[in-house]
Amino acid sequence: MTISIAHLGPTGTYSETAALAYKNWLAKNQQQQAILSPQPSIAVALSSVVKEKVNYAVVPVENSIEGSVVITLDMLWEQTSLKILRAFNIPITHTLLSFNTSLDSITTVYSHPQALGQCQKWLESHLPQVQLIPANSTTESLKYLKEHSHTAAIASSRAAELYQIPILRSGINDRPDNCTRFLVVGSATSNCGSYLSLAFSLPKNVPGALVKPLQIFATRNLNLSKIESRPTKRSLGEYIFFMDVEGSLKDPLVQEAIAELEQHTEVLNIFGNYDLISVLSGVRGGKET
Amino acid sequence: MTISIAHLGPTGTYSETAALAYKNWLAKNQQQQAILSPQPSIAVALSSVVKEKVNYAVVPVENSIEGSVVITLDMLWEQTSLKILRAFNIPITHTLLSFNTSLDSITTVYSHPQALGQCQKWLESHLPQVQLIPANSTTESLKYLKEHSHTAAIASSRAAELYQIPILRSGINDRPDNCTRFLVVGSATSNCGSYLSLAFSLPKNVPGALVKPLQIFATRNLNLSKIESRPTKRSLGEYIFFMDVEGSLKDPLVQEAIAELEQHTEVLNIFGNYDLISVLSGVRGGKET
Repeated sequence: MTISIAHLGPTGTYSETAALAYKNWLAKNQQQQAILSPQPSIAVALSSVVKEKVNYAVVPVENSIEGSVVITLDMLWEQTSLKILRAFNIPITHTLLSFNTSLDSITTVYSHPQALGQCQKWLESHLPQVQLIPANSTTESLKYLKEHSHTAAIASSRAAELYQIPILRSGINDRPDNCTRFLVVGSATSNCGSYLSLAFSLPKNVPGALVKPLQIFATRNLNLSKIESRPTKRSLGEYIFFMDVEGSLKDPLVQEAIAELEQHTEVLNIFGNYDLISVLSGVRGGKET
Repeated sequence: MTISIAHLGPTGTYSETAALAYKNWLAKNQQQQAILSPQPSIAVALSSVVKEKVNYAVVPVENSIEGSVVITLDMLWEQTSLKILRAFNIPITHTLLSFNTSLDSITTVYSHPQALGQCQKWLESHLPQVQLIPANSTTESLKYLKEHSHTAAIASSRAAELYQIPILRSGINDRPDNCTRFLVVGSATSNCGSYLSLAFSLPKNVPGALVKPLQIFATRNLNLSKIESRPTKRSLGEYIFFMDVEGSLKDPLVQEAIAELEQHTEVLNIFGNYDLISVLSGVRGGKET
């Protein structure tokens, strides 16, 4: 059976690169064939899984510079049928694309706000006078290039190739170790990996209420590889806490910690217990299993 | 002397509304005259304070829908001369925007999932049959309006004005306490308010290293009104923790907590000890002093 994988489209986005890498990983490691299903937004890609229109969605969750992709965290929290099956890191190299051949005559640079943020120092030193304009995706930013000759866009070198736009400068990201973590999200529960992702809310306005959940893991020597807070819908100052724990649900110590955690939280959602896979051979990512 | 206040421009942004409200507050409460200085980005507004081109910058730090404004947190951490002098909340009112003039013919509503959630009861009672489609941001939802005439989007009245889209209904949020927090940032240290904002990094890969900092405040019954993690720029999985503590640096208990915190953190930055002021009379915001 061929499976379908939703991702943020159109062709040429980093999400497509990630989905394609995962498709190849599936073919090589699981002898599983897949087709890609580009979607207009991350939210719609995840909704397609909820509505069983596709088998999986491959979505970004965190970037080493800009931090969490909040829409992914919000959707995981709200749509409890969404489960994380695997995770992997993809290195991000930004290029400056333009039909103009000279840096000096660029007056405007378009890109996704996260890409603009990742190239901030380069832009300040090489293009201090330009206007930076956010677009909905790195690919969307390309459409402005044909309209005005003094514009440039920040996108991937793959987008340059696909849309046949000249590269003015490459590797313009401020740090070379820029990478984005992607999640493979489906609707089946996974409970035998080495990373456990969960989120919880706490009883309101109890000073130090977060101390207990952290102690539960610390006293068992379980490492938290991520902690992230997001405001609840109710008001500023009330948070949902997202955590990645290094451990397996098959480990009695982890089971014990989760049972104790349930007693000290208001709502507890377990997103999955999955592995961090390596989809690109020879590429330096984060900590890989 | 007239002082200058940098903010994210151009005219019409929420940041301009906030800067204007603060300018009026200064005139009324401190007999201080001010002029506004619009800037192309939040980063440039804050840089103008560092470079002493302006006296203050008024910048957003957290929104009850979109979460933290990461560029503001990053700049506070990186530019240690930036200090928080005051904070205030500006209410966010959702409006239903559409090129269609009748509620009855709306079949689809787009918005950020949290905005959809915040208007859930209104939607159930006024548009029970419509399809709700999540978008990555309230602004992104606007792009679908021109494509299909039976669609509407939930965004701010400011967005309606900026993108020239008619307002079909306003004030549709189920709860009136939706808001964005703004900071007044300058270069003088403030140490006599009721909120203390700080951030710290921790020694790498020590399981449970965050437990101690939280315990320091919990054992003294000092409430944390905010905790937020941001990745360091080194790699995924290493974080800087941003905290708002309810307390004054004049209180010996708070001084003691800070001294103890210094011993358990790698780098500790204190952004300021300031008051949450009320700049809009008759408006319900978050918890005000």
